[in-house]
Amino acid sequence: MKPANLKTLALELNLSISTVSKALRDSYEISQETKKKVTDLAKELNYQPNPFASGLRKKSSKTIAVIIPEIANNFFTLAMDGIQVIAQEMGYHVLTYLTQETLSNEIASINHLRSGRVDGVLMSICSETSNNSHLEMLNDIGIPVVFFDRVCENLPFPKVTTDDYESAFKATQHLIDANCKRIAFFGGSRHLSIMNKRRNGYLNALEKNNIEADPNLMLDFNDNNEENLQIIGSLLSGKNPPDGIFSAIEKLAINTYEICYQLDINIPNEVKIISFSNLRTASFLGPPLTTITQPAFEIGHEAAAILFRLIEKKQMNDIPDKVVLKSTLIARKSTL
Amino acid sequence: MKPANLKTLALELNLSISTVSKALRDSYEISQETKKKVTDLAKELNYQPNPFASGLRKKSSKTIAVIIPEIANNFFTLAMDGIQVIAQEMGYHVLTYLTQETLSNEIASINHLRSGRVDGVLMSICSETSNNSHLEMLNDIGIPVVFFDRVCENLPFPKVTTDDYESAFKATQHLIDANCKRIAFFGGSRHLSIMNKRRNGYLNALEKNNIEADPNLMLDFNDNNEENLQIIGSLLSGKNPPDGIFSAIEKLAINTYEICYQLDINIPNEVKIISFSNLRTASFLGPPLTTITQPAFEIGHEAAAILFRLIEKKQMNDIPDKVVLKSTLIARKSTL
Repeated sequence: MKPANLKTLALELNLSISTVSKALRDSYEISQETKKKVTDLAKELNYQPNPFASGLRKKSSKTIAVIIPEIANNFFTLAMDGIQVIAQEMGYHVLTYLTQETLSNEIASINHLRSGRVDGVLMSICSETSNNSHLEMLNDIGIPVVFFDRVCENLPFPKVTTDDYESAFKATQHLIDANCKRIAFFGGSRHLSIMNKRRNGYLNALEKNNIEADPNLMLDFNDNNEENLQIIGSLLSGKNPPDGIFSAIEKLAINTYEICYQLDINIPNEVKIISFSNLRTASFLGPPLTTITQPAFEIGHEAAAILFRLIEKKQMNDIPDKVVLKSTLIARKSTL
Repeated sequence: MKPANLKTLALELNLSISTVSKALRDSYEISQETKKKVTDLAKELNYQPNPFASGLRKKSSKTIAVIIPEIANNFFTLAMDGIQVIAQEMGYHVLTYLTQETLSNEIASINHLRSGRVDGVLMSICSETSNNSHLEMLNDIGIPVVFFDRVCENLPFPKVTTDDYESAFKATQHLIDANCKRIAFFGGSRHLSIMNKRRNGYLNALEKNNIEADPNLMLDFNDNNEENLQIIGSLLSGKNPPDGIFSAIEKLAINTYEICYQLDINIPNEVKIISFSNLRTASFLGPPLTTITQPAFEIGHEAAAILFRLIEKKQMNDIPDKVVLKSTLIARKSTL
């Protein structure tokens, strides 16, 4: 019989993996009744929380580091959940560094990892990262590294991403099918490969439909909220406004709603909007926002799973270079 | 003449402090034109980015650590912005640790700080933290510590919070004034002093209005989203549902919208909602959400300012024990 793991227990008890994990850690969040059910079954099935926590690996810190660029983005919230679930299953602590889209913080985090000891690193790079010299330091530390979402294409570490190009193509086609003629692209830093893929998906969808790309409709935004609002305001109140917007960044879609409310522009009648987003309130916005929703939890979970195989030196023969998980287009009223 | 600082430059050029700071760091986000304006004025006014970076303090790491519990909460996004602005002004890196509401991660973060060197710590505790033994380790490290928002009342560190009790009282009174008779309280971990203050504000507002508190309407939630949805669903579809909800936690208000959409319960006609929240989409929800909005940026900024006075040993005579900044009630359609 296969040894029981969190998943076995969760399936058997019809609970979520996260609930089972929390119950086993005696979290205050879980009722005594649920805790008893979980621990009873764990005993019955001889569940071992961390099969690798033997004396074999004394040098291990049982800690991994996660380096992420921002928190005003629900993608990372969900990805962190995915990482956390598997880290708990493996009996590891998670040390999370936020770089706040700032290169100097990213460098500080990596430097800090050299003094403190961790067993592996999960990383999503910040938008200021244009060269790899500090990332190559990760090589020097000599520990496993896995990139997720915002990856660095040139470094020899496994990468877990979503189908950015295909999703962007689909999003643009969705607007074209909804009769949009002037479709704007709202993107971010050209240092990020995911942004370039999304931009290319947009451009190729236009081309396939014989729509000429208009450089005035392709906007790169930065992290300055006030400036971004101004740019969107100018565009939408200008002479030749777009009738469709494909936003590659969640917060730009929120900015667009803000401007539309201010200028009394009707979504979707005057302008339709689709955005890459894991926004929890997408369905409750006025109007509900059509999204390209990334499998954020799964991306975090998969990246962590690969990292732990590297750390524990398990199934090393078939560690993938790249894993690409599919995003989903969820049509709502903003593009109706 | 007082030496120029970021604020002087920003005022003079009519730019935000953040833009000036980024321009001086040569961020890709800022246009060449703006950069030139900023650097020219900086030279003219003899701006010194970091007056303390002299040889006097060779032992400094020029790094502070920030420990926060969660990222699915716009309060912390904004607080981090406030911290970042002043850290940049002072020429410090910010190392941010996310504990994900998990005590073991909080302990791992503090342990990690003992091996890596930082000059000071800003901290907001996680909801699992019920005793202080690991926080007392912060004393052992021998570096300045400032708590913000979720503070630990018993430890001798400065604390920056909002007026949780008064705001909760006001929120409850707001629902009573809107004719609500059965007002529910949605709260969180009883380990957190801010939760207890908010609960007390609610209870005292009811008492002042001669409304008897109903224990069935006072709910404590945890971090398990599915369980929370279930609890809210049972309450709202039950025999004696509330006609008003005061949520002390942003995500519970979003959960409530989700349930109301599912069960086709009209907000505000059937149930009114007010929530502690810095949600960026609050105004664009259907209907817009009435919020108690915390001065999140200012809380982060103030906590960091105090920390830097401790680190740089400036104005040590009047370091406050407590700073309480006021929240604002913003009435929107969800309580109309």
